[in-house]
Amino acid sequence: MMTQLIGEQDLEDLARGAAVLGTGGGGNPYIGKLLARQAIREHGPVTLMDPAEVPDDAVVVQSAMMGAPTVMVEKLPRGDEAVNALLALQDFLGHPVTHVVCGEAGGINSTIPFVVAARAGLPLIDADGMGRAFPELQMLVPSMFGVSATPMVVADEKGNTVLLRTTGNYWTERFARAATIEMGCTALIACYAMHGQQVRDTMVLGTLTLCRELGRAITQARAAHGDPVQAVVGRLDGHVVFRGRVADVERRTETGFARGRAAVAGLGEYAGGDLELNFQNEHLVAIRDGRVVASVPDLIIVLDSESAEPITTEELRYGFRVCVVAAPCDPRWRSEAGLALVGPRYFGYDFDYIPVEERLAAEGSRA
Amino acid sequence: MMTQLIGEQDLEDLARGAAVLGTGGGGNPYIGKLLARQAIREHGPVTLMDPAEVPDDAVVVQSAMMGAPTVMVEKLPRGDEAVNALLALQDFLGHPVTHVVCGEAGGINSTIPFVVAARAGLPLIDADGMGRAFPELQMLVPSMFGVSATPMVVADEKGNTVLLRTTGNYWTERFARAATIEMGCTALIACYAMHGQQVRDTMVLGTLTLCRELGRAITQARAAHGDPVQAVVGRLDGHVVFRGRVADVERRTETGFARGRAAVAGLGEYAGGDLELNFQNEHLVAIRDGRVVASVPDLIIVLDSESAEPITTEELRYGFRVCVVAAPCDPRWRSEAGLALVGPRYFGYDFDYIPVEERLAAEGSRA
Repeated sequence: MMTQLIGEQDLEDLARGAAVLGTGGGGNPYIGKLLARQAIREHGPVTLMDPAEVPDDAVVVQSAMMGAPTVMVEKLPRGDEAVNALLALQDFLGHPVTHVVCGEAGGINSTIPFVVAARAGLPLIDADGMGRAFPELQMLVPSMFGVSATPMVVADEKGNTVLLRTTGNYWTERFARAATIEMGCTALIACYAMHGQQVRDTMVLGTLTLCRELGRAITQARAAHGDPVQAVVGRLDGHVVFRGRVADVERRTETGFARGRAAVAGLGEYAGGDLELNFQNEHLVAIRDGRVVASVPDLIIVLDSESAEPITTEELRYGFRVCVVAAPCDPRWRSEAGLALVGPRYFGYDFDYIPVEERLAAEGSRA
Repeated sequence: MMTQLIGEQDLEDLARGAAVLGTGGGGNPYIGKLLARQAIREHGPVTLMDPAEVPDDAVVVQSAMMGAPTVMVEKLPRGDEAVNALLALQDFLGHPVTHVVCGEAGGINSTIPFVVAARAGLPLIDADGMGRAFPELQMLVPSMFGVSATPMVVADEKGNTVLLRTTGNYWTERFARAATIEMGCTALIACYAMHGQQVRDTMVLGTLTLCRELGRAITQARAAHGDPVQAVVGRLDGHVVFRGRVADVERRTETGFARGRAAVAGLGEYAGGDLELNFQNEHLVAIRDGRVVASVPDLIIVLDSESAEPITTEELRYGFRVCVVAAPCDPRWRSEAGLALVGPRYFGYDFDYIPVEERLAAEGSRA
């Protein structure tokens, strides 16, 4: 990590890498790239700051888009709503916000903070709250350390703002989700105000650098006629768990989320087999030939099998040839507190979390 | 109207009269009386202030309970949540609140403001926003005059608060309702901050005095072995539109409201006839022998046929002998702007509003 300026030319790789970490959610990388590009064109490059250089007493706010990815692709943000959310939170805090940071990694949620940073003239810290994307607002590593998501602002494109002060981050999720649904299933948020020291202590550091490296690894492997999927696997210490053709997708926008499942019919070494993916904005569980092969909080990433282009859950279509990659999550998610927040049982599954590398070792990975 | 002190002994009549104006909603008068009695016992009598005496620049805030009456009777407020809502709004306003006022008339919503006034040591203004109760937050006469419901605070008993700033009162209703549902279908609110002059210009004045007079008229008629129903009819310039026995009640708590309908089988001069009541917290429409006999915004009031005890929609039960009274609403509701807010078409009925006295004159009232 090092503090650096991010210009237009960096955004393509960054948004693509962010969509890899987005594990199907976190927003569409194409839209994310366009939004950030426009803001940087108008306001100049954004300073991406090494967390080590952030002053202890910095006032850091997370900026993100909340809602169903299925709706985000139809109801694009202008960009100023996200800044309005930040300014409304700043008003309430009574202190100037000094730095912006990402709540999660994802095609939009790693790029919207660039829009806010560019428009507000603030540096963006190279970190995020998850090291991936998760569907709910309390699902951040800082939640484990008692950091409150509130005061939080939820804003829409019409000028409505909702300011939440709650007794816990689970309540915040409920109120913010309800407001987001009334706003048309997408909203812009500003939340998890924290000091610089808390960023270093509780966030996942270097996420945007990782996003850019992942995107660049894909680009370079393509250019060199190499294997871009292997480039992703190598960078994330991951595993190919399936290759095949999407045979069926069930998708519905429900309680403000894009929920559904996809069936993939095996090809190549997986011919005759099948893989089922369950998602709530993000991929939650991958079931290969009837057995769980990977689950939250580990990353389940669907890539185009040739180009390694990450495919978000709202884009997944019948006939796509995909490669499904699983990769270990931030180790803090594997703790008891982490699994209580984002383990499979929280999402309603009746099995315990087993790290993906252990599942594959036990099964004897075919990859 | 005159400024006066309201003590415990005034509450019985006041809560009963408020439930008459509540037209089935506005909360249970028994619970309302208990809440106000406890607050007055602890903090002393409340000053009920004549609107004429309120300074022009007074900072007036409405205090109320929001939600489904069916749930309110099971999930009672402690009282401090309502004060918390007021204080949270005061924090945001940045000015001390100087007076409390009622948003609507109703068993709870005419008494919760006494709780807040007693606990906060503030005078309560003798007025309300409707001259009755209506189910939605934008349905106040001040809305017609462009008064914003926001900034508004929605608070629960757990310590969660939601502060809304919206572009219109209809949006406020949507966000506040969504928050109320997440809070368990009841919440305490503080909203419609206005100056003293705006109270005089846009509110319905003297409502609490009317509530007390109505309640007292019922009490006195009972004591004198008179006809308490006629006492209500006389005071409200109303009409008995039906007498009968409740034959059926359908009630559901849906989208945060108590919705349903009741069928009443005629007795006495109405024998052989039937009346259908449709409600959304409050009674919306009364259909006698297949023809609309009264509708919003006019008041449709269900009273025990002997005692004239007002019966709220959540209390209505098979077998109750009731007298249904219709009475004219505040004349401002009969304007085009008023009917756009609270006329039958707003509630999804496919007929135009006709004042109850005209409907009855056309039909030849049997009362």
